[in-house]
Amino acid sequence: MTKNMNAPSTRGPLDHSVREQIVDAATEHFGHYGYEKTTVSELAKSIGFSKSYIYKFFDSKQAIGEVICANRLEMIMEVVNSAVSDAPSASEKMRRLFRSLTEAGSELFFHDRKLYDIAAVAARDKWPSTEKHEERLHNLIESIITEGRTAGEFERKTPLDEATQAIYLVMRPYVSPVQLQYNLEAAPTAAALLSSLILRSLSP
Amino acid sequence: MTKNMNAPSTRGPLDHSVREQIVDAATEHFGHYGYEKTTVSELAKSIGFSKSYIYKFFDSKQAIGEVICANRLEMIMEVVNSAVSDAPSASEKMRRLFRSLTEAGSELFFHDRKLYDIAAVAARDKWPSTEKHEERLHNLIESIITEGRTAGEFERKTPLDEATQAIYLVMRPYVSPVQLQYNLEAAPTAAALLSSLILRSLSP
Repeated sequence: MTKNMNAPSTRGPLDHSVREQIVDAATEHFGHYGYEKTTVSELAKSIGFSKSYIYKFFDSKQAIGEVICANRLEMIMEVVNSAVSDAPSASEKMRRLFRSLTEAGSELFFHDRKLYDIAAVAARDKWPSTEKHEERLHNLIESIITEGRTAGEFERKTPLDEATQAIYLVMRPYVSPVQLQYNLEAAPTAAALLSSLILRSLSP
Repeated sequence: MTKNMNAPSTRGPLDHSVREQIVDAATEHFGHYGYEKTTVSELAKSIGFSKSYIYKFFDSKQAIGEVICANRLEMIMEVVNSAVSDAPSASEKMRRLFRSLTEAGSELFFHDRKLYDIAAVAARDKWPSTEKHEERLHNLIESIITEGRTAGEFERKTPLDEATQAIYLVMRPYVSPVQLQYNLEAAPTAAALLSSLILRSLSP
């Protein structure tokens, strides 16, 4: 492949690392100054690149925001999958799913860096990464219910999609960072109480 | 009964009706222009009273907002109590509680007049009316569970306060107008799905 700055499809490893560098710097910058209030000019200045150089790699501020948001959601899913994977039962998987989701969400959008307002915009404007995240969680809940039904841990009368959707709705205020902001303090207790309620609803 | 500290004892029925007139006009004004952005001067102008006349009846804009918020929450509780009172079973009471709460909340804070931002400030600043509202709902949930346990409809193993708190947490995203704004579209479906999940969790 020949390298040509005007043709995005031909961009090679060097450009890839510049993209990463921009995303990392933007994550830090937005984490300090917020996403909504920051302009690409300010971002460029703080990184030490020209605005036009950034526009070679990203079409818009949103394009950078989308990568940051997707990265954070990916990190949350890694934490969740790792917490769930070695649980000894479907019940314990459900508990760990809820706990790890609220912990990772609080950590990655509120404590580590205040990237909450990227999440707010992402939810408001329905960025594809948030929709994909919801779908993955939905699928994970469904697979845990199925596992518990097969093992005889859970009841089998309720239609699978109804049980899945209802449990997802119980978790959603702690999944969506926009809603999580109102539940941050209560989240650890809520995750425990609501997991128990969910498991009571699943008992045969 | 002693009169409110802010209202000297010489104020009679006439003043009472002026207070109501101010609250009604403010409800309409905030419903159009928002609560946060409006000043008492603007409000006075729109009612046709002087600012100092309004201050004879209310210490601050917040004092007016608190009355409006308390009135709305009172209306919600009336709708809820009326929906629940003649239900034939504890299960049906729980369903009606959830449904009427989401319907009345959507109607009274979002559709009828956009008083959502009063609710947002009320929640943020923990106005007494919102705390009282939460407590009343908590008590109502507890009494429905108790009734269902006595009638043999619900299980009795889970500590009553744990079951109550968990069910309250399931409902909260639809009770709090601040969170309800993110759930408005999904609220009717969610109320049905989550009521069923709650009832499965309560089954003996």
